[in-house]
Amino acid sequence: MNRLLKLTQQWKADNLLMPIWVEENHLCMIDQRKLPHKTEILEITQVDQLAKGIKDMAIRGSGAIGIAGVYGMLLASRISGGKKEDVILAGKKLKSTRPTAVNLSKTVDNLSKFAESCSEDRFYEEFMEKACDVLEEQLNFEKELGRYGAEIINDGDSILTHCHSGALAGSGFGGRALSVIRTAFLEGKNIHVYCCETRPYLQGARITAYELEKFGIPHTLITDGMSGYLMRIGKINKVVVGSDRVASNGDLINKVGTYMHALAAKENGIPFYTATSSHTIDFSLERGMDIDVEYRPEYEVTHLDGKLITTENTRALYPAFDVTPNEMINGIISEEGIIRAPYLTQLLRLKK
Amino acid sequence: MNRLLKLTQQWKADNLLMPIWVEENHLCMIDQRKLPHKTEILEITQVDQLAKGIKDMAIRGSGAIGIAGVYGMLLASRISGGKKEDVILAGKKLKSTRPTAVNLSKTVDNLSKFAESCSEDRFYEEFMEKACDVLEEQLNFEKELGRYGAEIINDGDSILTHCHSGALAGSGFGGRALSVIRTAFLEGKNIHVYCCETRPYLQGARITAYELEKFGIPHTLITDGMSGYLMRIGKINKVVVGSDRVASNGDLINKVGTYMHALAAKENGIPFYTATSSHTIDFSLERGMDIDVEYRPEYEVTHLDGKLITTENTRALYPAFDVTPNEMINGIISEEGIIRAPYLTQLLRLKK
Repeated sequence: MNRLLKLTQQWKADNLLMPIWVEENHLCMIDQRKLPHKTEILEITQVDQLAKGIKDMAIRGSGAIGIAGVYGMLLASRISGGKKEDVILAGKKLKSTRPTAVNLSKTVDNLSKFAESCSEDRFYEEFMEKACDVLEEQLNFEKELGRYGAEIINDGDSILTHCHSGALAGSGFGGRALSVIRTAFLEGKNIHVYCCETRPYLQGARITAYELEKFGIPHTLITDGMSGYLMRIGKINKVVVGSDRVASNGDLINKVGTYMHALAAKENGIPFYTATSSHTIDFSLERGMDIDVEYRPEYEVTHLDGKLITTENTRALYPAFDVTPNEMINGIISEEGIIRAPYLTQLLRLKK
Repeated sequence: MNRLLKLTQQWKADNLLMPIWVEENHLCMIDQRKLPHKTEILEITQVDQLAKGIKDMAIRGSGAIGIAGVYGMLLASRISGGKKEDVILAGKKLKSTRPTAVNLSKTVDNLSKFAESCSEDRFYEEFMEKACDVLEEQLNFEKELGRYGAEIINDGDSILTHCHSGALAGSGFGGRALSVIRTAFLEGKNIHVYCCETRPYLQGARITAYELEKFGIPHTLITDGMSGYLMRIGKINKVVVGSDRVASNGDLINKVGTYMHALAAKENGIPFYTATSSHTIDFSLERGMDIDVEYRPEYEVTHLDGKLITTENTRALYPAFDVTPNEMINGIISEEGIIRAPYLTQLLRLKK
């Protein structure tokens, strides 16, 4: 049995919730669009199938689609019997599915560069070793992040989280915010999670709640407008969210709604943390408000499950992200430790 | 033609969006549960039908169900040919449909007391006059409130509103928050409304957007977590919401989510107003946080249109209201004028 199959056995035994993994003869991928009602597993035997799955959001989350890139190149290597050019071509194809996904393109670029440097005759073996290293790195990243982050979680905490920053967006341990929460839980801390449904796409209701249930972590679903009141009456005493990007001054760009939780946390004297990766710090971005926030199609607000929820003529607006000022953030949890203010200088520790 | 039919003609000509009104031989009531996709009008010929409609929330909103009480007693008077005891009995029946609806029970009690005092032989005419007065009072209330409130709306304003505090919750002019917005619009001010969908029940997406469209007021639908970011980037510069209750110190109890808009408004230096009625001030309530907030069934959060949006085992929490501290409120708009801090003394102007 090769190293990858052995690792996979180990990961399954460790109760990872993997978005994608390998079986003897094919890849398996959870179709995240069907969650939480159905855990449908797609069997993937061709690189094109995987590319379509990434493009159509069957798999999503920056860590997860980076990993999907690794598996896709491994699949190409197996199909071709270790043909270098086929593997590099597969990487190009996979990268083109989500042109703005930084993690996917970085991962593929690194692996392609490595492939170039491999010998022709031992390509299959060398590439497999490297790919396994990359997969293990992502998992180790989540565990390290979780270990540092769990320090700020106390026994008895009630933790708010927003959107989905979990296992299925990473390698299966807990992604970012959920790695922190899960590690604290695995350490035996008695915690409760308030999970915001996260309108309009309901990632919290659909995926975060699903993961919390899978991991056996006690949780309660709320709508996005409820966090403030629940803080005020003492039901929530900590906030841990993920991060889509962090500016060099520590401003947080994350799923829209995050800023309002931060405001409520500040008002109620509740610590607010974001879990991130050193790769998510954008040192070229001076302040969060300098970013061009993506506006998504208005039908994502006016429709739910394809059904119109307002009048036919009503227009909508959907800024996908918002910006939380650094002064509202008590700490930025990373795989290198917890960074605290002043962020402008302290974040430099994560510059690679 | 009697006074009521004449008034009704006038109200229709004035472009009121009435939740309930009279035709020659029956009452008509918009089935608000079907909005916005269908404007279904229920024809009501029996008091029991109306009672069922109130109970089942076909008509809702404190002003509107108060008015429904008036129409129901008028219907009983007409059916019975002006039999006092039938009218009083109808009032009792209508009141029992929503035992906690203060406006409904106050209205019915007042009319019943009046009915008692009427002469037997001219009962039909006397009661009709009184009922018309009550209906006109509600409309005048909305117009007065709107007139005072419109003073704080400037040409070019972009106004956030939450939940539904509009025409169909009142007599058809604009209820509370929408009376303010509509009056400013009718005065020719160039305004835009950001209408929060208001999860979980989507009153904003379903009813407020519908009314804004009917009145031709430019508007954009957003999810509840977006208001903060839109304030930060300058797209929203004022907040006007309704009020479920106001404490004697000016704390506002309103649909959950309101508090978070107030926090965002405060942080961004944006004025926050609530539109209320003197009857909504609860002088027996010292501070907002003293209130027992109603918790509604969790399936209202976990299900949307009867469809589960999360896992089967996920529990939810639904505090129906939250509390906005008085210091975040720039003014309380009432039918007697705009009340400003210090609320503890200034609100006494509204004590009747």
